[in-house]
Amino acid sequence: MKCVNESPSVVALSGGIGGAKLAMGLYSTYSSRSLMIIGNIGDDFEHYGLHISPDLDTLMYTISGNSDTEKGWGLAEESWNCMESLERLGGETWFNLGDKDLATHLERTRRIMAGESLTEITSDFCRKFKISAQILPVSNDSVKTIVETENGDMDFQDYFVRDQCKAIVSGFRFEGSSQAEPNPLFMEALSDPSLRAVVICPSNPFLSIDPMLAIRGVREKLRDCSAPVIAVTPIINGNAVKGPTAKIIRELGYTVSPYTVAEYYKDFLDGFVVDIRDKAAVCDIKRLGLSVEVSNTIMTDLASKTDLAQTVLKFAGNCKK
Amino acid sequence: MKCVNESPSVVALSGGIGGAKLAMGLYSTYSSRSLMIIGNIGDDFEHYGLHISPDLDTLMYTISGNSDTEKGWGLAEESWNCMESLERLGGETWFNLGDKDLATHLERTRRIMAGESLTEITSDFCRKFKISAQILPVSNDSVKTIVETENGDMDFQDYFVRDQCKAIVSGFRFEGSSQAEPNPLFMEALSDPSLRAVVICPSNPFLSIDPMLAIRGVREKLRDCSAPVIAVTPIINGNAVKGPTAKIIRELGYTVSPYTVAEYYKDFLDGFVVDIRDKAAVCDIKRLGLSVEVSNTIMTDLASKTDLAQTVLKFAGNCKK
Repeated sequence: MKCVNESPSVVALSGGIGGAKLAMGLYSTYSSRSLMIIGNIGDDFEHYGLHISPDLDTLMYTISGNSDTEKGWGLAEESWNCMESLERLGGETWFNLGDKDLATHLERTRRIMAGESLTEITSDFCRKFKISAQILPVSNDSVKTIVETENGDMDFQDYFVRDQCKAIVSGFRFEGSSQAEPNPLFMEALSDPSLRAVVICPSNPFLSIDPMLAIRGVREKLRDCSAPVIAVTPIINGNAVKGPTAKIIRELGYTVSPYTVAEYYKDFLDGFVVDIRDKAAVCDIKRLGLSVEVSNTIMTDLASKTDLAQTVLKFAGNCKK
Repeated sequence: MKCVNESPSVVALSGGIGGAKLAMGLYSTYSSRSLMIIGNIGDDFEHYGLHISPDLDTLMYTISGNSDTEKGWGLAEESWNCMESLERLGGETWFNLGDKDLATHLERTRRIMAGESLTEITSDFCRKFKISAQILPVSNDSVKTIVETENGDMDFQDYFVRDQCKAIVSGFRFEGSSQAEPNPLFMEALSDPSLRAVVICPSNPFLSIDPMLAIRGVREKLRDCSAPVIAVTPIINGNAVKGPTAKIIRELGYTVSPYTVAEYYKDFLDGFVVDIRDKAAVCDIKRLGLSVEVSNTIMTDLASKTDLAQTVLKFAGNCKK
């Protein structure tokens, strides 16, 4: 095992499934010990009294090679005996809890109750999963995504999993974000003059990246960071690879295009990676004052993840601040 | 499904494994809808944030025919994938949590947090397990068995499971027992003039029965009850079938004999069932003013459970109050 405490050369910000694919690519391309992956915690919630951190888990499972690659979430070779028994008892089964996955939630909850921080717990879990990169929660404090919909406010998982994103969204807010302290390791990394790149993974800008940007100091620190900040489009050819990103962008009154995402991030962004299917958007994005790279951004296997990661890192190397 | 809300003809008090065997015998012998089984809650504890009620679970699993009959606790055809993953994460694995069994703890915890009483939850679980008898916690309040040992006080599960009863015991106390309200359904049943028998199952008198007797009003109500109160010996030929009963009796300075148990209960007892291997104890127990029945009390299969249950009920029918 390599030491994971040295200052990272690359910091990546990621939500769950889509972002984790690029994070995996970066991990397999890059000297893993100098990679820091910052995970969203806006989706975290309490279920059956357990503290569940879906994005941190997806990152951990994906990067360690333990994820169910078909589903994109959860563990490979999972069993569902607890879930079946819960169903029999009339329990709530709208959120999938695999038998192995449950161990993560149980042990995280036990350690939180024992006073450990989410950073300490996540770091130790990474050691146990033999991950040599640092995966860190964006904060040790609670930041809770609330979905503002036509039917009123909804807790994130109620909207996302229980109701399958059916409600029409009018906005989001991130409870606790103004009091939450950003992870000091993340802030230190952004201040480090030897940092080579910050990568905003192809995650949902409103659901996965915004809760991190909403924490006081994060957006400013990204803006002031000496390394180039590069985002990879989560929108390809007018849609998202998976999940409700396109639907949400539309409901919020934006056009479903990579331009919308680039524009949304433009105050702290230096470069933007659009998909080869969206070459037409390049000029408009350049007009925002950003460098643009065109690449295949659909990641179907380890090779395409690694290819995109290499492209992003090379682009960052050439990107003007 | 029969209605379970009519007043019971037989009330049984039981701890876990040993007591549950006789409870199972009573259930399969007797008109199940008029059987009320009162379970000990002194062993209940919080683990990983979950509310675990080992004795209620053992009763429920045994009586529904779902228990692992070899181990005596837990569910048959159980899987241990969560437990293995917990081990990998460096979690606490001293208390066995099967994947299916976990569902019981998760759903109980969820419902307690939602404001349901332990009685409501246990009754609903029984319906889901298709048990037509009433299994009830002795109280909806917390009663916590503390084991006083040579090394100081220990939480019950630390003593019983984690340390495998190694410490030398000097006494027990039941935190919360003086404030706890006995289950009103139990109290009503004991007051009912149509009640035919109260059975103290062959459970550990100090660990399983005493926490129930310690709740204010219970011992008095048993004493004043119009139905005969019958106990079945947990001690056979100078030992217990399973568990630390003999060790504890010895450490508390008593002789390991059915007489000790009969004497311990004598203020509210009318009849006592000794094992055929302990005929020699009959005279001494009779001298306590109790009726005595001699029977095989080792229950190895359903037939021997049913046989003993029938003997106990017949004995109760002939027992003078």
